Amino acid sequence: MSLDEFSLIRRYFSERAQSRLKSDVIVGIGDDAAVLQPPPQAELVSTIDTLVAGRHFPDQTAASDIAYKSLAVNVSDLAAMAAEPAFFLLSLTLPAASDKFLIDFADGLFSAADAFDIDLVGGDTCRGPLSISIQANGYVPTGSFVSRAGARPGDRILVSGRLGDAALGLALLQDRIKPGPDLARMCIDALNRPRPRLDLRRLLRQHATAAIDVSDGLVGDLRHILEQSGVGARIDKHQLPVNDWIRQHQQYDYALSGGDDYQILFTVPADVCDQVLEEAGESNIDLTVIGEITESAFVMIEQDQQLDLSNYKGFDHFDT
Amino acid sequence: MSLDEFSLIRRYFSERAQSRLKSDVIVGIGDDAAVLQPPPQAELVSTIDTLVAGRHFPDQTAASDIAYKSLAVNVSDLAAMAAEPAFFLLSLTLPAASDKFLIDFADGLFSAADAFDIDLVGGDTCRGPLSISIQANGYVPTGSFVSRAGARPGDRILVSGRLGDAALGLALLQDRIKPGPDLARMCIDALNRPRPRLDLRRLLRQHATAAIDVSDGLVGDLRHILEQSGVGARIDKHQLPVNDWIRQHQQYDYALSGGDDYQILFTVPADVCDQVLEEAGESNIDLTVIGEITESAFVMIEQDQQLDLSNYKGFDHFDT
Repeated sequence: MSLDEFSLIRRYFSERAQSRLKSDVIVGIGDDAAVLQPPPQAELVSTIDTLVAGRHFPDQTAASDIAYKSLAVNVSDLAAMAAEPAFFLLSLTLPAASDKFLIDFADGLFSAADAFDIDLVGGDTCRGPLSISIQANGYVPTGSFVSRAGARPGDRILVSGRLGDAALGLALLQDRIKPGPDLARMCIDALNRPRPRLDLRRLLRQHATAAIDVSDGLVGDLRHILEQSGVGARIDKHQLPVNDWIRQHQQYDYALSGGDDYQILFTVPADVCDQVLEEAGESNIDLTVIGEITESAFVMIEQDQQLDLSNYKGFDHFDT
Repeated sequence: MSLDEFSLIRRYFSERAQSRLKSDVIVGIGDDAAVLQPPPQAELVSTIDTLVAGRHFPDQTAASDIAYKSLAVNVSDLAAMAAEPAFFLLSLTLPAASDKFLIDFADGLFSAADAFDIDLVGGDTCRGPLSISIQANGYVPTGSFVSRAGARPGDRILVSGRLGDAALGLALLQDRIKPGPDLARMCIDALNRPRPRLDLRRLLRQHATAAIDVSDGLVGDLRHILEQSGVGARIDKHQLPVNDWIRQHQQYDYALSGGDDYQILFTVPADVCDQVLEEAGESNIDLTVIGEITESAFVMIEQDQQLDLSNYKGFDHFDT
């Protein structure tokens, strides 16, 4: 890659980044490091995720979708902590710098940055097998973040949106299934353009005892809450929010272990559950109660059966 | 990779990380994101760098050295901004998880973390071609960071330590040169275990008008200061702090464009230069004045010759 191409990368990203910086950014792209002034009475919430070609997205994925998803999955971690997105750093490793790839990538990236209101403040580019590391940061008012560790027996388990669409989209791209065109379009969109549930922020801060974003599949992610809270859970299979195809074909594994949903799974005390559902309804936030926290064990009810989920294998990027 | 191995990684990193957390860390490894409480009256300094196998380090590099260097180069960016290291996130992509690799990697990582007093608070692991992204954060008292943009004509140009050792170490590993065993050992150590110049923090905050860490070679990095400050520079070749081998063999390119030095290159007003050197001497900080900032042009003096450096090509990771 020539120096000109390297300058090109900088230009694509730094010019577009500098034009939209918020007031907490003192030094943005182009120095040894970015300098930020976090707001007073706020905690900083920090996460990093790397997406590797062929592993976290199919090789044929459009550059704009790769960029969009890379930022979205990181912002989803902020959403799960009830944080407000603030700024991010990008480390982009790519085999060669094609103009088209970079233009499309930057389009997807800034489209996501605009949608989530988060600023690119720094980064790094290098040559190598395609992978994207994004490190995203947000703020929460001091003491109001939500971790995975606060669920208590009796708490209701809720999940936002719908589970399994993205996994169905991947299966479709891999020719493993063939749903109708409308469902296909929606599922591929769910796979390529996840929407972090930033709209839940206020509800989570006020009511949630624990929360996580569903990235590896419902069972695996709920297990994280159970382990870190030291509790068990009982979920009801027929309450899971899934699309008609999954329900008709009884393919609940897409929802249970498919991954890539980026919905928020959280718990609230039983006595505020109705209030949470009511507040959510007023804000057009789609929530479903799928079960409750118990003292121990991890099971799923299906009619009069009870399935043990403690050894059920969720999708794990390392497990394939 | 089995789930057990994945758990193993978590254990290697998270247990060792949790045992040394400082008080600004509210939630460390193991949740969707880390939660930090930045100190009042401080700015947050944030940087990310990815190291790719075969590009940023030779394939045969020991896992402990890879880890050490990955953290060191990021902390060096903090040092160049005059920031105090605070916390970092690690995204580790590796082809397979061998016990030995992970143990050695964790040893190198925590050895560096101890040396630089910085906490691992979060991360991500995935499978793919070996690469390490580290995102490091530090604090500076509000308003006291040093950027690349403040150099003014007349300012003296200083550099810490010695330049070219690491590039010589790489040439040696690639059998391009054959220095004696003592020099060889020192140069390979400089390549594998860079020491971020955190000791310059106080001096930089008090006196520096601009600063950068020398990662891509003196000329390329000084050029960044000149571009961002809108000035020129004149440096004196015979003042460059290099080892005897470089001086004897007149191989100044190792210092001018070799890269990987991680020394601090900075500028100070002429009238405080003596004071800076004196204060540095009292603290056993090795500084050399190598030139001065001018209105325009970028040249190097060698006896009675003047070489134009404006098109001199520094080492660029994208340029090979």
